[in-house]
Amino acid sequence: VIEDEFAVEPAGDCRGLAGEYAATLTDRWDGLGGPNGGYLLALCLQALAIELPFPDPIAVSAFFLRRGEAGPAWIRTEVVRTGRRIATGQARMIQNGREAVRVTASFADLADPPPNARTLTLSQPPALPPPAECIDPSDGAALAGLSIIDRMQYRFSEVPGWWYGSPGGGARDEFWMRFADGTAASTLTLPMLVDAAAPAIMDLGETTSATVQLTVHGRARPAPGWLACRVMTHHIGGGFHEEDVELWDTTGTLVAQSRQLAVLR
Amino acid sequence: VIEDEFAVEPAGDCRGLAGEYAATLTDRWDGLGGPNGGYLLALCLQALAIELPFPDPIAVSAFFLRRGEAGPAWIRTEVVRTGRRIATGQARMIQNGREAVRVTASFADLADPPPNARTLTLSQPPALPPPAECIDPSDGAALAGLSIIDRMQYRFSEVPGWWYGSPGGGARDEFWMRFADGTAASTLTLPMLVDAAAPAIMDLGETTSATVQLTVHGRARPAPGWLACRVMTHHIGGGFHEEDVELWDTTGTLVAQSRQLAVLR
Repeated sequence: VIEDEFAVEPAGDCRGLAGEYAATLTDRWDGLGGPNGGYLLALCLQALAIELPFPDPIAVSAFFLRRGEAGPAWIRTEVVRTGRRIATGQARMIQNGREAVRVTASFADLADPPPNARTLTLSQPPALPPPAECIDPSDGAALAGLSIIDRMQYRFSEVPGWWYGSPGGGARDEFWMRFADGTAASTLTLPMLVDAAAPAIMDLGETTSATVQLTVHGRARPAPGWLACRVMTHHIGGGFHEEDVELWDTTGTLVAQSRQLAVLR
Repeated sequence: VIEDEFAVEPAGDCRGLAGEYAATLTDRWDGLGGPNGGYLLALCLQALAIELPFPDPIAVSAFFLRRGEAGPAWIRTEVVRTGRRIATGQARMIQNGREAVRVTASFADLADPPPNARTLTLSQPPALPPPAECIDPSDGAALAGLSIIDRMQYRFSEVPGWWYGSPGGGARDEFWMRFADGTAASTLTLPMLVDAAAPAIMDLGETTSATVQLTVHGRARPAPGWLACRVMTHHIGGGFHEEDVELWDTTGTLVAQSRQLAVLR
C-alpha cells in the first residue's frame, strides 16, 4: 500500500524535539542516481500534513541539496504560519547529519472552497486515447532497472523515441500514469507524481539531469484512476533547463501543475 | 537609482547575529494592499547576494505570509548549502516581530556556464512592435495612485480593456516594461520585475488577488533596455489561480520565468 511507503513517525520524546519525524528511505523508488527526489518530497509532506491543520498542499517548493540514500532519515518540521484558510510550514530532511531536501509548503482545504468560487479552465487536458487503447512501454530498455519504474504504470499513445534508444528531437510528452498497485493519487502524492515521469529532454538526446528546485501547485483533489500527464521543456541554456508538468484526472480536471529547474549533467 | 531603493545593510554587531540585515521599506513600491511583494523579495535577495558566493539567483521561491508596511524591517539569512556551482540560502523578512516573507533561493554564476553548454529555445518572445511604436497606458485610471506604477514604464501594442475599466475577457497580456528611471534590470531585480505587472486575471473582471507563493527562475543576465513581458493565467478554481510570467530582453533571450499561486479576494 502506497500510504505505508511514505509513512513517517514522530521521532520520539527521547530527542525532546517537537515536530521531528523519523523515516526510512527504501530502494523501491530509485530513479537515475538513487532515491527519486519526489519520493523524498512525499515523505516531507507527510510530516507537514501531521503538523499543519489543513490537508491539501496547494503550493510546494523543494530545494534538492544532496542526494538521498536508502536508510534512516530525519525530518525536522517548523510551522511557519497558520492562517484562517492557509497554513505554511517547512520541512528539512536530514541524512547522515546533512540536509538533503528543504521543503516549504502552504496547505489549505481544497474541499472547502470559498462560496461562489469561480472555476475557469483556459487550457486543455492531453488528448489521449483511453489507457486500454494505449501502449505499455514497460518492455522498453531505456529505464529498465530503475525501481521507481516498477512502482508506476505508464501508457503512451506514441512512445517517445528515446524510450527505445532513438531520441525523436522533441521536448513534450503526453501519457497516462498511475501507481502500479492501484492506489489512487491524493493531493499528498501529486507532488511526487509530477517527478515520477522521465524528463521531456530525454527525447532531445540528454541522458540525465538533476533537479535544483521543484515547485508544485496542488489545484484539486484527483479522482481515482489514471492521470493524464503533460511534460514540457521550452528552454535550455547555461547548463540548466526548466520542466513543466501538468496532471489532469479522468474527469478532465487539472489537479497539479509543476515547474522545476534542473541542471544538466 | 534603483540600487539604493533595494539596499540592505548589516544589522550591526550590537545584535550579535551574523547574516542579519536591516532594511527600510518605503511607500514608493506600493501595489494594491501596500508594498509590492516583489519589492520585499528584492530586498531579501540583496541580503542573500551578500551572503552567497555566486551573483545570480537562478531559482527563487518566496512565500508571502503577511503584508509588509512602510518602515523598518529585518532580514535574517541562512546559508543552507554552498556547492561548487550552486549555493542555496534562505532569507526571512521580519516586521514588527512577525515573519512577512520567507525566501529560499539558489544562486549560480550565469556568466560562467559549463563548457559546451547547449542553448535551445523552443518558444518565442512576445511579438511586439518596438516600444516607441507602442502605447503608454500611464494615463489610464485603473491603477492610478499606486506608487509602483510611477516607478515603472509600460508599453502596450494593445492596452487590455480592464486598464480603462472594461475587462476584455482574456487572461494573457504581452507588453514592454522597464524601470522608469532607466536603470537596467539585473538578475537580482528580475524576480521583482515579474511581480511588477498587473495580473492577467484583471481582464477577466477580477479586481485583486494576493500572492501565496512565487517561484522565479533567472535564466540569463538581461541586456540593458526594455523587457518584453508575457503574463498568462490558465486555471482558476477553488479560490486560487496561477500566473505565469516570462521576461525576454531585446536580444530575444528569455531572462526569467515565473509562476505564482495567488488567492482571489
